[in-house]
Amino acid sequence: MDQVRALWEDVERIRVQSPLIHNITNFVVMNTTANALLSLGASPVMAHALEEASEMAGLAAALVINIGTLSPGWVEAMLEAGKEANRRGIPVVVDPVGAGATRFRTQTVHDLLAAIQPAVIRGNASEIRALFYSEQATKGVDSRHAAEEALAAALAVAEACRCVVCTSGATDLVVGSGHVIRVANGHPIMPRVTGLGCTASALIGAFAAVNPSPLLATAHAMAVMGIAGEIAAQHSPGPGSMQLQFLDALYLLKREDIETRLKIMED
Amino acid sequence: MDQVRALWEDVERIRVQSPLIHNITNFVVMNTTANALLSLGASPVMAHALEEASEMAGLAAALVINIGTLSPGWVEAMLEAGKEANRRGIPVVVDPVGAGATRFRTQTVHDLLAAIQPAVIRGNASEIRALFYSEQATKGVDSRHAAEEALAAALAVAEACRCVVCTSGATDLVVGSGHVIRVANGHPIMPRVTGLGCTASALIGAFAAVNPSPLLATAHAMAVMGIAGEIAAQHSPGPGSMQLQFLDALYLLKREDIETRLKIMED
Amino acid sequence: MDQVRALWEDVERIRVQSPLIHNITNFVVMNTTANALLSLGASPVMAHALEEASEMAGLAAALVINIGTLSPGWVEAMLEAGKEANRRGIPVVVDPVGAGATRFRTQTVHDLLAAIQPAVIRGNASEIRALFYSEQATKGVDSRHAAEEALAAALAVAEACRCVVCTSGATDLVVGSGHVIRVANGHPIMPRVTGLGCTASALIGAFAAVNPSPLLATAHAMAVMGIAGEIAAQHSPGPGSMQLQFLDALYLLKREDIETRLKIMED
Repeated sequence: MDQVRALWEDVERIRVQSPLIHNITNFVVMNTTANALLSLGASPVMAHALEEASEMAGLAAALVINIGTLSPGWVEAMLEAGKEANRRGIPVVVDPVGAGATRFRTQTVHDLLAAIQPAVIRGNASEIRALFYSEQATKGVDSRHAAEEALAAALAVAEACRCVVCTSGATDLVVGSGHVIRVANGHPIMPRVTGLGCTASALIGAFAAVNPSPLLATAHAMAVMGIAGEIAAQHSPGPGSMQLQFLDALYLLKREDIETRLKIMED
Repeated sequence: MDQVRALWEDVERIRVQSPLIHNITNFVVMNTTANALLSLGASPVMAHALEEASEMAGLAAALVINIGTLSPGWVEAMLEAGKEANRRGIPVVVDPVGAGATRFRTQTVHDLLAAIQPAVIRGNASEIRALFYSEQATKGVDSRHAAEEALAAALAVAEACRCVVCTSGATDLVVGSGHVIRVANGHPIMPRVTGLGCTASALIGAFAAVNPSPLLATAHAMAVMGIAGEIAAQHSPGPGSMQLQFLDALYLLKREDIETRLKIMED
Repeated sequence: MDQVRALWEDVERIRVQSPLIHNITNFVVMNTTANALLSLGASPVMAHALEEASEMAGLAAALVINIGTLSPGWVEAMLEAGKEANRRGIPVVVDPVGAGATRFRTQTVHDLLAAIQPAVIRGNASEIRALFYSEQATKGVDSRHAAEEALAAALAVAEACRCVVCTSGATDLVVGSGHVIRVANGHPIMPRVTGLGCTASALIGAFAAVNPSPLLATAHAMAVMGIAGEIAAQHSPGPGSMQLQFLDALYLLKREDIETRLKIMED
């Protein structure tokens, strides 16, 4: 019951405050993450130019950095925006899309994490493993591992980076400060819609903008993702319907949806 | 009745002529604006490289410049394409997304307007105010003002730039050549779908391609946006459904929809 | 019946193997082609940086190069990725979006085809003609010709480039190695959804990843596109619905859909 209340307070805060979430993200998901943030009640902005990235980050309530379609100019802007967010105490979410698939992506994530203090890192199991093991385990941007196989890596990265690490999968793992939280909401069709992982990272940004605990913000965001996915899947014969039903479900989300569906388990 | 006929003639011209609309626009909305132009009956093209922007603008019936996800290389291409459109007498629509949020965006809009003669500038109230007042009033890309609060700024910008200025909001303001037109069509859910403002600018391009009066073209485009939005909202529990219903409504738009719904008021 | 079996075997292979398809494609369609590949059962990745394009191509089962929103830096990455794919024997699909509209696009396609051995080139009739005739016949990215008007050009390009050439239209032409295959599946509303041509090229990549004959892979992909389009159109009052119904139809595609609808004719 406390979990439900805490989560729902975050949702209401987002809906009332409409926090500005600055995204430096990939081309594939810009539209869908902007729409997900709007459906949830937040205010998205996308800005990647070095000329304005730092200034925009300074206006935002959270910064989300996603390396899904990377190029060197964008990395510079990510670094500047991230440093400015750190200076101002604005939470930074890092999504290492495709880390472990190419050296450029793996190296970029290491460079980002060396220069920026993230509040949360969220990836799939292969991406989180790639931050810790020297393995090339990511198939493009899709995971070759179940979330649970990244538990050791997630704990190690959380400690090394002093941040929360979220490994998403059928059951999401959220670890940090000695806690391990599992979120078992979601639906198997979700990975068939491109960018729902990236959307999760964007929503973590929105929750982190209103909740001072990155651990709880992340667990709440993942639960809302999963619950909206469950509701959407009921009306979705395929991934096309799923895309729009997911946005509708976020927009229409009610406290009783949380009450009846929430599956958060803490170790 | 004359308003209905004039508007409907524009819609039919777009459907018959399928004018080529060249968009140099932002990553978030490229897909949705292309789809909106196709649903209306126009032929969209996106081309941003300096190597071809001017040539593509020379082939088009209208040019739409949108600074939503800006970078310096794109600004150069916008300038070249805009100058070529001016040389050929092709109408140019400028959408100053996020002007007032960062210095880079505000400065870019000033540079564009110093070098290019627009037919129409369309933005939200905060963006239009930022073109006139020295204020940082834009929250990312969302407005902090109602359209009516930008009336003085819109009139001043219209005079200074010798063009039509459209401030979109619950009631859209279209000003130019001493006229003030208000368009009261639309639905409150529309701002919860990303990029409908950018879509409005793209549709203004399509109407300006077939109507020699930028003032009427803009009023017609905003009315069609609003009416399609009203029809779409009837079938949309949330912003996800709204996205697709809006495209369907544009595609299926009938003269009687205009007759029964049009709310254009001229001072 | 053999046609049905051969096509359906490809679909099942894609669903089982989930081949990684590396796309260097345009901003307008990145999301929709990623979703189409996922709905079909493949695993899409988008990566365009020179720093990783070649490495990512080396991991993929097919490479799709699409010049829809071109810039010089991207051309370099296309060349490197294409050469690596050639070295490794990975099939390369080239989509010359807008060839014939601007000199930059036409020249880029010639440069790509001079340096890379494609397995398949797919475009609309104006684009395919532009590869052969010295004419500026493309209206932005839309065709000014029926597919059949590009037959001579398609045959000549197929011979000159020693590859399969697919000209899409109401009836698609697939030519190569002395064969001419016509695929008559599809629905007239399909061109009103942006990027379905680009989606066809991406699906050709998926089929080429599992079928060693580029000719059959291309015919199968075009038939699946058309059949999914036919099924989707039954539930689509307009292009907005069509977008999502098309993805659902790809995801739900059954062997009996192929049996009852397939229209492949070989000369």
